Amino acid sequence: MAELPGEPLHILLVEDNEAHAELVIRGMRDQQVANRIHHVIDGEQALDYLFGRGAFADMKKNPCPNLILLDLRLPKIDGLEVLKIIKTTPKLLRIPVVVLTSSDAESDIARSYDYHANSYVVKPLEFKKFTQLMKDLGFYWLGWNTMPIKD
Amino acid sequence: MAELPGEPLHILLVEDNEAHAELVIRGMRDQQVANRIHHVIDGEQALDYLFGRGAFADMKKNPCPNLILLDLRLPKIDGLEVLKIIKTTPKLLRIPVVVLTSSDAESDIARSYDYHANSYVVKPLEFKKFTQLMKDLGFYWLGWNTMPIKD
Repeated sequence: MAELPGEPLHILLVEDNEAHAELVIRGMRDQQVANRIHHVIDGEQALDYLFGRGAFADMKKNPCPNLILLDLRLPKIDGLEVLKIIKTTPKLLRIPVVVLTSSDAESDIARSYDYHANSYVVKPLEFKKFTQLMKDLGFYWLGWNTMPIKD
Repeated sequence: MAELPGEPLHILLVEDNEAHAELVIRGMRDQQVANRIHHVIDGEQALDYLFGRGAFADMKKNPCPNLILLDLRLPKIDGLEVLKIIKTTPKLLRIPVVVLTSSDAESDIARSYDYHANSYVVKPLEFKKFTQLMKDLGFYWLGWNTMPIKD
């Protein structure tokens, strides 16, 4: 088993599909790692969260996440644009970003890696597989992967 | 369970410690995914492999890998330098690179993410944990993670 950290980990979930968000949140709740999920529903909210703007100005309530789960097709600002901004912003670029999307289009995969997504995962269609994915994904990224210390 | 690809996957393992390499190779052999591990023992060999130079000129025998497992403290050319070259070379930068190292130094972690390592994993000291890590790591990266189609 991976070493589990004592501090709760913060996950920023950027997902406009309510059913998918529910599956992720449930799957992550079942993790052996204590974590808190901050759910935002479009690209603009994601950037507001990460830059501590507007409704997310309280950084104690909305701390810098340890992991970002990012959908691609998002209202207001597209997920690829959000990814590009994260990975070109010095204070954000070390945060692991897992693209979690329904798209298996080669152009989305290629561009995500070009923009330095840490990982690209296609959402399974079946409920059971989705649940298993969240378990494996959570275990790998919250358990095994070593995250940089936040500034 | 993740979707398992039909084609064998190629893993480039860059590791100078023979005992560690043996653990990785054994762990990866136990995967449900068919894979072939190409093991090189220093940074120079890693780059020769990736650029198809010298002893690695036969690209059929030494194809572009689907995943790179990269140690940091390496003879000849350091792992961080190898990582930097991979992630600034257009034909290589989409290949997922997992840094797999004994170092948990904050400077190594930070620099690896700055150079766009996809993931950073500290080798467990215990044999059992190392074996479990290789299982989980292989399952995540070869099973769930979607890789770009090679050119």
